[in-house]
This record gives sequence, structure tokens and C-alpha cells, in this order.
Amino acid sequence: MARTAGSDGERTQAAIRDAAVNLIARYGYEAVSMRQLAAEVGVQPAALYRYFPTKEDLLYDLMTAHMNALVASWETARPATGDATALLAAFVRNHINFHVERRHSTHVNNMELRSLSRDRLSTILRLRAGYEKELRQILRQGADAGLFTVEDVTLTAMAIIQMVTGVIVWFRPDERLSVAEVTDTYHKMTMRLVGARNA
Amino acid sequence: MARTAGSDGERTQAAIRDAAVNLIARYGYEAVSMRQLAAEVGVQPAALYRYFPTKEDLLYDLMTAHMNALVASWETARPATGDATALLAAFVRNHINFHVERRHSTHVNNMELRSLSRDRLSTILRLRAGYEKELRQILRQGADAGLFTVEDVTLTAMAIIQMVTGVIVWFRPDERLSVAEVTDTYHKMTMRLVGARNA
Repeated sequence: MARTAGSDGERTQAAIRDAAVNLIARYGYEAVSMRQLAAEVGVQPAALYRYFPTKEDLLYDLMTAHMNALVASWETARPATGDATALLAAFVRNHINFHVERRHSTHVNNMELRSLSRDRLSTILRLRAGYEKELRQILRQGADAGLFTVEDVTLTAMAIIQMVTGVIVWFRPDERLSVAEVTDTYHKMTMRLVGARNA
Repeated sequence: MARTAGSDGERTQAAIRDAAVNLIARYGYEAVSMRQLAAEVGVQPAALYRYFPTKEDLLYDLMTAHMNALVASWETARPATGDATALLAAFVRNHINFHVERRHSTHVNNMELRSLSRDRLSTILRLRAGYEKELRQILRQGADAGLFTVEDVTLTAMAIIQMVTGVIVWFRPDERLSVAEVTDTYHKMTMRLVGARNA
């Protein structure tokens, strides 16, 4: 029988990451022990330490995976053609869809930065800055083209990111509204926020 | 000499609250011990337990104080007269000023809800819902008067609250912009977001 090399190990690592995201989102990084995590996954602590020598290694792995996935999702979603209005619409849509599907992971990424060592924190903040720069470029492009009213590109980018990321704080699918309905309303609010002429 | 009864105790309690907000904002509630907190304030652990029998009592005290102060600040700031546009402007201004001055306390209130017992969580969420209801009423009043374009009052209220609370994540006074400049820009963005006709 053909067997993918390392597939057991990959499955174990994936199970560890899933359990870690859920436990850390619920109890906080400081409160979750490697022992508790191993018990949750159903492996010996030694197995955990083989993949993640320290708890911080695991946290850093979760955070880089999250940020890399976010960047990759935008690279895929970004329209090849279109003006700033089309780009901004795609950015908001992708951002909401990405985060609604990864609520726990988003909480971990937003709340546990304080637990990273300085170098690793810098790496995560650099990934985040690169992603946010994409939004700033769209806003600048729209303002330069006379499509948007933007008093301050940096403030507007932060306002939009906080507004759309905030969806995960209160939104639960299957309630009053679908993800698509929520996204549509946020799209309209964002277009008004930047004074889009052609939305 | 006249001496305010209990003033030593009040000063100690205030020092405990200050130290607790700073330590919890920095390390997280789970990671901060009552022993560490007592050392930070310079009192014996027994003194701490006299005022706050459990760590959760202390957390709950901090959170209710924060929410009550927020509600009180809005009661003071709310204009006695004026249409929905004037009310919304005052709401955004007060919200930003309140939170910029209490960044650590805001982080504790947003991040440590998971550590409250069910009844206490309900109380905090009820205070929060009451405050947010004020914003929803302003939005509804503006929409009914034909002053605002609002697709969904609940979504719009959440979007505005996330957007303006997000200021504390990145804003540091003394940097590029003053609090007044930031507030002015957020005021303009909010007015556009709701399509205010008379802003």
C-alpha cells in the first residue's frame, strides 16, 4: 500500500493546531498548558514537544499560519482588473469571509500578541502591516483618481479593518442574517464611508 | 484634624484597581496572581483579600466600574436638544475620548469576559447592551427622520462601535495626530457611513 510519508505526523500536527486554537481562544494562552493540550488531542506530552518544542513555538506557528493564509486569500481574491472601488469591494468581501470562517484563530491572533518574544512579534506585525498596506494603496488609488473622499489614508484603513474584523465579535451564521447579507451591508457602509462616487 | 473616614482604605482600593488594570492588560487575567498584585501595590495578600475576596471579584469590580463610567460619560455628554446628526456626533466624540483615556481598562473589558461567571457576565453584557441601545436609537431616529441611510440598525451600530473603539488599538497621543484630529476624522467617516444629509 502506498502511504504518504509523514502523513500521521501531519495529521497529529493538524490536530494539535486545531485543539490549540480552540483552547487558547477559550481560556487564553497563559491559562492553557502543554499537558492540557496533549490530553485534548489524545497524545503524550512528549509527542507534542516533538512538533512544538515550546508553547510559544506553537503560538507563533498558529499566528504565522493565520497571517499567511490571510495574505494568500487576498492574493487569490484580488481582481486582476478594476478600479479602486472594485478593489475595495473585493477586499472587504474577502476580509469578512476569511475571518468569519476563522473566528477562534482571529481571536488568538488579536489577543495573544503580548505573549510573543520580540523578534516573533516583529515578524507577525510585519505580515500584518503588509496586508494593511494593500488596503492603504487601494484607498490612495481611489482618492488620487477622484473616486473616494479620504481625509487620512492610515486612519481610514484602520477604521475599515476594525469595522469589518469586528463582525466576528457578534456575528453567528444561522442567526438572523447570512454571511452574504452581512457582507453586503458592510460593503455598502464601506463605500459610503470612503464617499465612493461610483459604488 | 478632620480625616475622611475610610480614606486609607479607599486609597488602597484605588491603588489595587490601578495595578490590576495594568497587570491584567499586560499579562492577561489568568496569568496574574493575587500575590503578584499585592506585591505590585505594596500590601500583604491578606489586605488584598479584605477588599476583593476572590480574583474574579476584582475583575468584576473593574468591569462594572468601566461600564458604569462609560454610561455616565454618555449621560453627561448627550446633548439635551438636537437632531440625530448632532446626537451621533456627540456619541462618537464621547466614545473615542472615553476609550483613549482608558486604553488598558478597555482591553480588560473586551478581552476578559470569558473569565467571568455566568451571572456576572450577564450583568456586564446587559450594561453593554444598554449603552449600545443608545446608539441604535440614534440611528433609528436619524433613519426615520430621513437624515440617515441605514440598511440595518444593529449592524450599523456594531460597525460604528467597532470602528471607533478600534482607535485605542493603534492610536498613541503625541504621535502624528492629536486626539482632536483623530476624533474629527472619525466623525467625518461616521457621518458618511450613515449617509448623513446634514452633517
